[in-house]
Amino acid sequence: MRFFSDNAASVHPKLLQALAAANAPDTAYDGDAHSAKLNAAFSDLFETEVEAMWVSTGTAANSLALAAMCPPHRGVICHKEAHIEQDEAGAPTFFTGGAKLMLLEGEGAKLSPEALESHCAAIRDDVHQVQPAAVSITNASEYGMVYHPPEIAGLAEICKDRGLGLHMDGARFANALATLGCSPAEITWKVGVDALSFGFVKNGGMSAEALIFFDRKLAAETQYRRKRAGHLQSKGRFLAAQILAMLEDDLWLENARAANDGAQIIAAAAGDRLIYPVEANEIFISLTADEAAKLRGIGFDFYDWGEGQARLVTSWNQTAEEIRPLADAIAAL
Amino acid sequence: MRFFSDNAASVHPKLLQALAAANAPDTAYDGDAHSAKLNAAFSDLFETEVEAMWVSTGTAANSLALAAMCPPHRGVICHKEAHIEQDEAGAPTFFTGGAKLMLLEGEGAKLSPEALESHCAAIRDDVHQVQPAAVSITNASEYGMVYHPPEIAGLAEICKDRGLGLHMDGARFANALATLGCSPAEITWKVGVDALSFGFVKNGGMSAEALIFFDRKLAAETQYRRKRAGHLQSKGRFLAAQILAMLEDDLWLENARAANDGAQIIAAAAGDRLIYPVEANEIFISLTADEAAKLRGIGFDFYDWGEGQARLVTSWNQTAEEIRPLADAIAAL
Amino acid sequence: MRFFSDNAASVHPKLLQALAAANAPDTAYDGDAHSAKLNAAFSDLFETEVEAMWVSTGTAANSLALAAMCPPHRGVICHKEAHIEQDEAGAPTFFTGGAKLMLLEGEGAKLSPEALESHCAAIRDDVHQVQPAAVSITNASEYGMVYHPPEIAGLAEICKDRGLGLHMDGARFANALATLGCSPAEITWKVGVDALSFGFVKNGGMSAEALIFFDRKLAAETQYRRKRAGHLQSKGRFLAAQILAMLEDDLWLENARAANDGAQIIAAAAGDRLIYPVEANEIFISLTADEAAKLRGIGFDFYDWGEGQARLVTSWNQTAEEIRPLADAIAAL
Amino acid sequence: MRFFSDNAASVHPKLLQALAAANAPDTAYDGDAHSAKLNAAFSDLFETEVEAMWVSTGTAANSLALAAMCPPHRGVICHKEAHIEQDEAGAPTFFTGGAKLMLLEGEGAKLSPEALESHCAAIRDDVHQVQPAAVSITNASEYGMVYHPPEIAGLAEICKDRGLGLHMDGARFANALATLGCSPAEITWKVGVDALSFGFVKNGGMSAEALIFFDRKLAAETQYRRKRAGHLQSKGRFLAAQILAMLEDDLWLENARAANDGAQIIAAAAGDRLIYPVEANEIFISLTADEAAKLRGIGFDFYDWGEGQARLVTSWNQTAEEIRPLADAIAAL
Repeated sequence: MRFFSDNAASVHPKLLQALAAANAPDTAYDGDAHSAKLNAAFSDLFETEVEAMWVSTGTAANSLALAAMCPPHRGVICHKEAHIEQDEAGAPTFFTGGAKLMLLEGEGAKLSPEALESHCAAIRDDVHQVQPAAVSITNASEYGMVYHPPEIAGLAEICKDRGLGLHMDGARFANALATLGCSPAEITWKVGVDALSFGFVKNGGMSAEALIFFDRKLAAETQYRRKRAGHLQSKGRFLAAQILAMLEDDLWLENARAANDGAQIIAAAAGDRLIYPVEANEIFISLTADEAAKLRGIGFDFYDWGEGQARLVTSWNQTAEEIRPLADAIAAL
Repeated sequence: MRFFSDNAASVHPKLLQALAAANAPDTAYDGDAHSAKLNAAFSDLFETEVEAMWVSTGTAANSLALAAMCPPHRGVICHKEAHIEQDEAGAPTFFTGGAKLMLLEGEGAKLSPEALESHCAAIRDDVHQVQPAAVSITNASEYGMVYHPPEIAGLAEICKDRGLGLHMDGARFANALATLGCSPAEITWKVGVDALSFGFVKNGGMSAEALIFFDRKLAAETQYRRKRAGHLQSKGRFLAAQILAMLEDDLWLENARAANDGAQIIAAAAGDRLIYPVEANEIFISLTADEAAKLRGIGFDFYDWGEGQARLVTSWNQTAEEIRPLADAIAAL
Repeated sequence: MRFFSDNAASVHPKLLQALAAANAPDTAYDGDAHSAKLNAAFSDLFETEVEAMWVSTGTAANSLALAAMCPPHRGVICHKEAHIEQDEAGAPTFFTGGAKLMLLEGEGAKLSPEALESHCAAIRDDVHQVQPAAVSITNASEYGMVYHPPEIAGLAEICKDRGLGLHMDGARFANALATLGCSPAEITWKVGVDALSFGFVKNGGMSAEALIFFDRKLAAETQYRRKRAGHLQSKGRFLAAQILAMLEDDLWLENARAANDGAQIIAAAAGDRLIYPVEANEIFISLTADEAAKLRGIGFDFYDWGEGQARLVTSWNQTAEEIRPLADAIAAL
Repeated sequence: MRFFSDNAASVHPKLLQALAAANAPDTAYDGDAHSAKLNAAFSDLFETEVEAMWVSTGTAANSLALAAMCPPHRGVICHKEAHIEQDEAGAPTFFTGGAKLMLLEGEGAKLSPEALESHCAAIRDDVHQVQPAAVSITNASEYGMVYHPPEIAGLAEICKDRGLGLHMDGARFANALATLGCSPAEITWKVGVDALSFGFVKNGGMSAEALIFFDRKLAAETQYRRKRAGHLQSKGRFLAAQILAMLEDDLWLENARAANDGAQIIAAAAGDRLIYPVEANEIFISLTADEAAKLRGIGFDFYDWGEGQARLVTSWNQTAEEIRPLADAIAAL
C-alpha cells in the first residue's frame, strides 16, 4: 500500500468522464466553452468576483502568482521549508525574473505574524539589501498543519502595512478546508489573501490546477506570463473540464474529507509518535530505521523524513479498510 | 466545419482509452512505468539512442531545447515568421534567460543555407554584438512546407562549422514525415538535428508533446529546467501514456496522413489561389474579403492571414466527405 | 588623426581637476556631497524637478531606464539600427529581465510617428504576441541626425495613448542640443520624454553618464536596480564630480559645439558624398575601398560602414586646423 | 575621524597621476594600450598565465565570475553573511540569470570544508532541488579574518570532486595578503581557486577592480557578459591605468599593510572587546550604546553592527598618529 504521496494516487473516475465529455472540437487555448466557465464557477465558490485560470502544475500556479506580485529585483518571504523553496527547483526565481526567497523559521512550516514582522523590520531600506514584495504561505502547510482565518488575518495586516502581496499555496487547500469547516472565502480574500494556488492534482485530479486572483488586477498580465512560460495548452478545454468536474457537487471537498479521515485513523494509532498535529492528510511520525524496515516489510511504502522520522500521506481513494492495517502495524511496533 | 486550427480538433479515442488504462497508482513525476518506456520507444523509432521527455506544450518543448543549446547572452537564429518568434510570447527568451532571436527571411518560412551563412558571416566577433548559439527550424514550416533531408544537411553543416546547435520545431513533424516518406531518422539526427520538438497535440493528441534529444548530453540539465519551469507534472504517467498510444502502430503517422490527404483535396480545388505548395495540412490561399465572407456564410471557418489571404488547416479526424464541400465551395468561387 | 570615435578622444582637463578636487574622504556610494547635488543641478538645467543618478556607461543608463518602464514579458520599440539593438550585446534584454526589442525602419535611424503607430496597430492584443511597454529613440540618432521637438511630440502622443514609456538615448544629447538651439526642457519632458540617458563620455567625459527621470516615480526602484547591476560605485563622488564639472558654465555644450563645428567642415567638403545630413558630430559618406585606402594612407583613420561607405566622427578637442586636412583630402579625391 | 569604511577614504595620489598620464586619445573600450597590459601584469604577479579584465565594482567582478561558473538553474554556495548574499542587492542572481545562493554557517564568515561537504551531501540529486555549481569565499572575510592556503585547499578539493567552480571575493585580497605573507599564487590558483575578484577601490583605488580568471576558459564568454551588463566602459584605459598604477612597485601591498597596521593598533587597545581576531583592516568589538555614543562624541564615526557591537575599518591613508586617539579612547572606556 502506497503512503508515499497523494500525487501517486489514481484520478477520480468523474474526471475521466469529463475528459471524454469534453472531447469535441472547440476553440483552442482558453477560448473554449469549458474555460469560459471558470471565472463564474470560482466566483460562486468564493462568493466574490475572482479571475481564475488553469495551469498544469502547482509549481506553475505558485510561480505565476508570485511573478504577478514581485518584480525581478525584490523578494518573496516564505517559510524555510516551504515547497517553493525546497521542492520547485528555483521556479519562483525563474518566473519572477530573479526574485530572492527570504526564509523564515516557524513551527510546522507555518509563518507567524511575529516572525514576519521581525524579519521585515530587520531589512534596512537600503539599496544594498533586497526588499520584499510578497509573502507566500502554504495551507495546509508542508507539515500538514492548517492556518486558521485569524492567523492569516494577522499576516495579511503586516502585508498591507508594508505593501506586500499575500499568496497562498493551496496544493492541499481542499484538505485544509475539510478540516477548517469554514467557507473558501473565509480563509482567503476575507482575511487578506490576494492570490491562491488551488490544488486539485493531489486530490484526485489529473493535470489541472487553478490559479485564483482575488486581486483581479494581477490577472491580466499573468495571462501573458502563462503563455510565455509554455503553460497555455492548446487544448485547454481538457484542463477546464477537469476542474469543473471537481467543483461539481463539491467533489473536491468530498475527496479531501476522505483523505483527511484516513489520516486520522493513522494519527490515532500513532499516538506519541506524532511530530505535528494531523490537520490534513499528512502524518509525520517518529520511526526508527528498524521500525521503518518492518513496516516496509509488510508492504507499506512511505518517505523517510530525515533521521528517525517518516512521512505518510493518505489519498482520496484509500478506504478505512485499506488504511487500518497500516494503523494497526504502527500501533503494534 | 472548422478549418481554423488542428488545435481545435478532438482527441483520438485511443488516447482517452490510454488515459483510462493508466489510471492506477504509480510513482509520481516521471518515475512511473509509462514514462520509463519513452526513451526506448523513441530510440526504436529513431533507430538510435535518444533521450525523450514529455512536456505539455510545443512552446515548452521548443524553449527547453533552445535553453539547452543557448546561454542567456547569446542568440537563436530562426525565420522571422517562426512560431518561436511570432506566437510564443517571448518564451524562448524567457527559458534561455535572455537569448535574442535573430531573424532571417526565406520563402515559405524556411531558412536556406545561403541566408544562414550570410547572416552568420555578417556578425562581427565583437563583444558589442550578440553571438548566435543555435538555429531553430520548423518542419513542416509555418507555411505548411517541408524541409527535405538535403536542405537540413546544408543548414547543419553551417551549424557544425560555427558551433551552433540545431533544433527542429516539429509541431507538425508527423505531417512532414507523412509527406516526405522517409524515416524519422533520415530527417533528423542523420542530417544533423540535435533536438526535436515532436508534436502530438495538433495531430489528435490531448496534452502531451515529446522533446527528443539526439545530442543526449543536452538532456540531463533539461530535466532540471523542466521542473524549474513548472513543467514536471506530478502525474506524468498520463502524458507518457498519451505519447505511447500515439506511437503504437504508428497512429501518429496514420493521423497525419489523414490530415494531409484532406489538405490535398482542398489544394486541388484551390489551384491558382495557392500561395505556397501544400506539403502538409495547411493551405494558404488568396481570398478576397467577399469570398471569405461567402465561405463563412456556408459554414466554414478559418483564419484570415493578412490582406486578401486565408489559412485553412485540416485535421486528423476530418474525412474526405467532410472536406469536399469546402473544396467545392472554393472551386465554385 | 583619429576620426574613429568620440570615445577615443581625451578627457577635458577640467574633469581631471574635478577628480583631484573631490579627492577627500566622503560617504561611500552616493551618500556623498557631490552626488547630493545632482538632482538640483539637473533640475535647474531642465527647469523642472527631475531625479538624476550617475552610471558609468550609456549602456547601463539606457538599460536601467528601459527596465524601469518595461516588465520582463513585454517589449521595447526602437529603430532596427538603434544602439540598444546593434551595439549593446543584449543589455536591454538583460536589465529588463527578458524584454524583446521590436524593430522599426526609418530614415537616418529615426522613428516616425507613422511607423510607430502602424507597428503598434499590427500587434494583436493576444497572449501569443509580446506587447510593447516602451519606446526608445536616440537623439542625435545613430546616423547623426536630430529629432526636433515636434517630431518627439508626435511620438509621445502615441506613447501616451497606448500607455508606453518614452526613453531618449542621449549618448550625443549635447551634440543634438548644440544643433537644435532649444533648451534641454524643450526637447525632453516638455514634449513627452519620460527618461533620458544624458551622455558625457563621448563629449570629453571620462567615466560618468547621467540617467535622468522626468517621470520621477521611475527613479526609486531604479536605485535598487543600479546596485543589483553592480553599477553603484563605492566612490561615486568621482562620477558626480565629473558630471558637475561638465555642467559648470555649460562645458558640455561648449564641447559639443566644437565637435559639431568640426563635422561641418568635413560635411562642406564631402558634398554629394554625404549619405545623411550632418546634424551632429558624425558624418556618413560614400567612399570606395580605394578612396578609403588613400585617406588612411595619409594618416586618417575611421570606420568602414558597410560596402562603399564610411563613418567619420569628430571630437570635442579637434580644432579646425586639425580637421581641415581631412576635409581637403576628401575634397581632393 | 572616519572608521566607517575603507570605501570612504581618499584615492592614492599616484592613481590621479596615472589618470592624467593616460589622458591621450587611444582606442575605445579595452582595445587601448593600457588595457592590453593587464593580462601580462597579472600573469607576472600570479606566476601563471591568467586572463584579467577591469570592472568598476566588486559586485560586478563577483557576479561576472559567478555567472561564468553557474548556469541560471543552479546555485552558488557561500557563507550566510557573505557580501554577495547580504550587500549586493541580488546581483549574483541577476548576473547568473537566476542562480540561488545556498547559505552556510561558519565562524568569522568563513566556510569550513566540513560545512561545505555536509551541505553538498544533503542535496539530493533530484530535479526538485537546486544543484550547486560554484562556491564563493571571501578573503579576507566579511569579519576581517583570513583563509590560509591549506583551508582553501580543503575547500577546493571538495569543489573538484563535485565539479564546482571556486571563486574568491577579494575585495580585501590585498589586506589578506599583507597578513598572510605568502605569494598571490599560493593563496589562489595553487590551492584551487578558479577566479578572483581582486579589489583595489577599498585600498586607495578610485573606480577600478580586477577580475582574474585562473581557469582561462571562463574568460572568453565573460567578455560578452561584461558588455551586456553595461560594464564595458568606452574609455576603459582609465580603469586599466588605475590598476597598473596600483601594481607598480606593489603599491597595493603597501597600502594594505598600512591599513592592517592601523587595525592592529586598535586591536591591541580593544583587548577583550574583540569579537574576532583582527587579521586584516576590520575590527569588530563589543561596545554598549553608551560607549558608542561616547566615542562618537569625541569625533570618531563607525558602524553599529547589531546589538552591542561595532565595526571599525582602517584605511590605507590613516597614520598611526591619526589612529592612536581612537585606540586610546577605546582603552579608556
